[in-house]
Amino acid sequence: MTSLLIKNVRIMDDEPADILIRDGVIAEIAPGLDAPGVAEEDATGLIALPGLVDAHTHLDKSLLGWPWYKNDVGGASLMAMIENERDMKQRLGLDPHVQSMRHALKTAGFGATLIRSHIDIDTQGGLRALEGVMQTAEILADVVEIETVAFPQSGLTTREGTAELMDQALAMGANLVGGLDPCGVDRDPKGHLDIIFGLAERHGKGIDIHLHERGDLGLFSMEMILDRAEALDMKGMVTISHAFCLGMQDYPRVEAMLERLAAMDVAIMTTAPASSPAPMVKQLDAHGIRIGAGNDGIQDTWGPYGNGDMLERAKFVGLRNNLREDVEVKRALDICAGGGAVAMGKPRRALKAGAPGDLVLVEGEAVVQAVVTHAPRKLVVKGGHITARDGQTLMAAP
Amino acid sequence: MTSLLIKNVRIMDDEPADILIRDGVIAEIAPGLDAPGVAEEDATGLIALPGLVDAHTHLDKSLLGWPWYKNDVGGASLMAMIENERDMKQRLGLDPHVQSMRHALKTAGFGATLIRSHIDIDTQGGLRALEGVMQTAEILADVVEIETVAFPQSGLTTREGTAELMDQALAMGANLVGGLDPCGVDRDPKGHLDIIFGLAERHGKGIDIHLHERGDLGLFSMEMILDRAEALDMKGMVTISHAFCLGMQDYPRVEAMLERLAAMDVAIMTTAPASSPAPMVKQLDAHGIRIGAGNDGIQDTWGPYGNGDMLERAKFVGLRNNLREDVEVKRALDICAGGGAVAMGKPRRALKAGAPGDLVLVEGEAVVQAVVTHAPRKLVVKGGHITARDGQTLMAAP
Repeated sequence: MTSLLIKNVRIMDDEPADILIRDGVIAEIAPGLDAPGVAEEDATGLIALPGLVDAHTHLDKSLLGWPWYKNDVGGASLMAMIENERDMKQRLGLDPHVQSMRHALKTAGFGATLIRSHIDIDTQGGLRALEGVMQTAEILADVVEIETVAFPQSGLTTREGTAELMDQALAMGANLVGGLDPCGVDRDPKGHLDIIFGLAERHGKGIDIHLHERGDLGLFSMEMILDRAEALDMKGMVTISHAFCLGMQDYPRVEAMLERLAAMDVAIMTTAPASSPAPMVKQLDAHGIRIGAGNDGIQDTWGPYGNGDMLERAKFVGLRNNLREDVEVKRALDICAGGGAVAMGKPRRALKAGAPGDLVLVEGEAVVQAVVTHAPRKLVVKGGHITARDGQTLMAAP
Repeated sequence: MTSLLIKNVRIMDDEPADILIRDGVIAEIAPGLDAPGVAEEDATGLIALPGLVDAHTHLDKSLLGWPWYKNDVGGASLMAMIENERDMKQRLGLDPHVQSMRHALKTAGFGATLIRSHIDIDTQGGLRALEGVMQTAEILADVVEIETVAFPQSGLTTREGTAELMDQALAMGANLVGGLDPCGVDRDPKGHLDIIFGLAERHGKGIDIHLHERGDLGLFSMEMILDRAEALDMKGMVTISHAFCLGMQDYPRVEAMLERLAAMDVAIMTTAPASSPAPMVKQLDAHGIRIGAGNDGIQDTWGPYGNGDMLERAKFVGLRNNLREDVEVKRALDICAGGGAVAMGKPRRALKAGAPGDLVLVEGEAVVQAVVTHAPRKLVVKGGHITARDGQTLMAAP
């Protein structure tokens, strides 16, 4: 943990001041600070934002650094995309450590200081992806904090041996238990959910489950998730990613579900997808539900989109939710920064004394302008440690 | 009209060749071309795309070049946004000529060579906005072709004198008759549509009407538009912008409407909005309906989003329609380029002999990569005339 004095920086849309980070934590924000012996950085009037947070991605999947991958699988069938990916990963001989280094450093260069990554655990790749990403997490500890979710991408009850691998992954140090569409993929919601909640209980870890299932099917799976979370007293320990079903057009049923989610303090992670129903920020906010956002996989066999920039993702959150007022767009940014950290159960990234010394300096006249233009980041700081300048991390990717 | 030989350029994803533009038109594409006396440009292996087309924007509205506008009106009420804008334009004293120069040059710097702009015509601003944009169109004739739509943004039957101003606007040279939500704004669909179709008939011009009305209301207005288009034999002369109602979840009714739209060769313009129902590209393609796309207003009193980049808009078309395969993303690009020109009733921008000499050079390994990264444009050419380098137009904005 490092100390740093950043001079002459605008705190969001406020007047310029200085930020003193001591031993990795913001110690003081005020004009004219002085800290003998502490390294100084002149921010020349740039805007400071809290460190960004990618609360849902897949560091083991990106094809960054490879020749352009021509996608001819499309988005029609989830199972076809899963099969294609497992085959391509083996055929190309992707190294999960190298790929996750490239992906995490790209995301960090855009100002993220905290990432939650789902990692494929399956009987073909075994624990190799987790080993690679954990190695990356260790190497990048001073650049970006990486949390791992053991994710049964190819199915759990339908592929013998996967549950045992998940158990080993958690023993090895994966931070959370993952899961996936208990109806749509395994076609055995009881079996799937009993296994992942059993793993969570045995290892004393939280859950973050992908739920793409829409409409009534998704609500049904969500009920089964909540039944188990309640029975095991897992308040605040469950996250549902995507949660497309919360975007369904059935106000009273969605509201009733939001009340139940709020009572169990379930967090929702979204990518703010343009092409599918999605949880609506204002509706969840009215229930005080924690929301984080993520870039999901970037430039992988699933699709060509994405570059790791959580400031662009904040723009997508704004566009998807029709957020136009400055105060609303700032909430979109918060979901991709401090609010996302809280959704992960981590300390809120914020520009105030006592918060982690994680921040991003951007050009611009106003915070909302920085979000909508997502201009290159001038400086990224994690725990008082300068990690990137002009969009490039100081550590080079392999 | 100018001649230009571009050497060593990749034609979309094909092998490098040379492109010879003679008197503004692509004359030949082949390796090793020679054209004595014609200016040469070495494209150093960059990818050539056809000139981009912004088929729906508002050049008279942007606040580009002004201090950051803090939005506190939001998106809840269309009428509140309309009132706020009319007041702000007067309070700031916006000069439509200056604003449209800034906006059009920004769009051109990103590679657009053709723009269709709706221009507010109302009893407060009169014809001032149209005059300003027409002046811009004249000055920028060699940089970007600008087509104008006389647009009754504040209402037509509800604001006396507007129809007469629309008539004058068309006499002055506005290219098309605009209209807006005949139910939602004027609350007199018959009155509104009779006026705009009457203007179209009198001036022998086409129509491009904004239709944000959703679901059954939108389909009702669309039926009334088609009734009149059929009665006046306006096949191929009507455009419906936004057309949110075509995204409604009622397959047989939407299909029946698409058949009727196809029979009258009505073109659809979309922004591929993330927060509202929208026409689905594959569904419209199955009916052979012409589709264009636009950035709509950028950085104006309606919202902070948008920068004028039609390559980013192609990404939004892809994201909104869940287009993942390379061939699908290329269709998204086409909607923002050649297909958009066809939707406007103009010659298709394409990289082949006989097409207009409009093109954009981008860095990248593959066309789809250029779309998803929307990297700065290296060179923009309109009618053989180099208009921009490295994202900057050669002509400076005021």
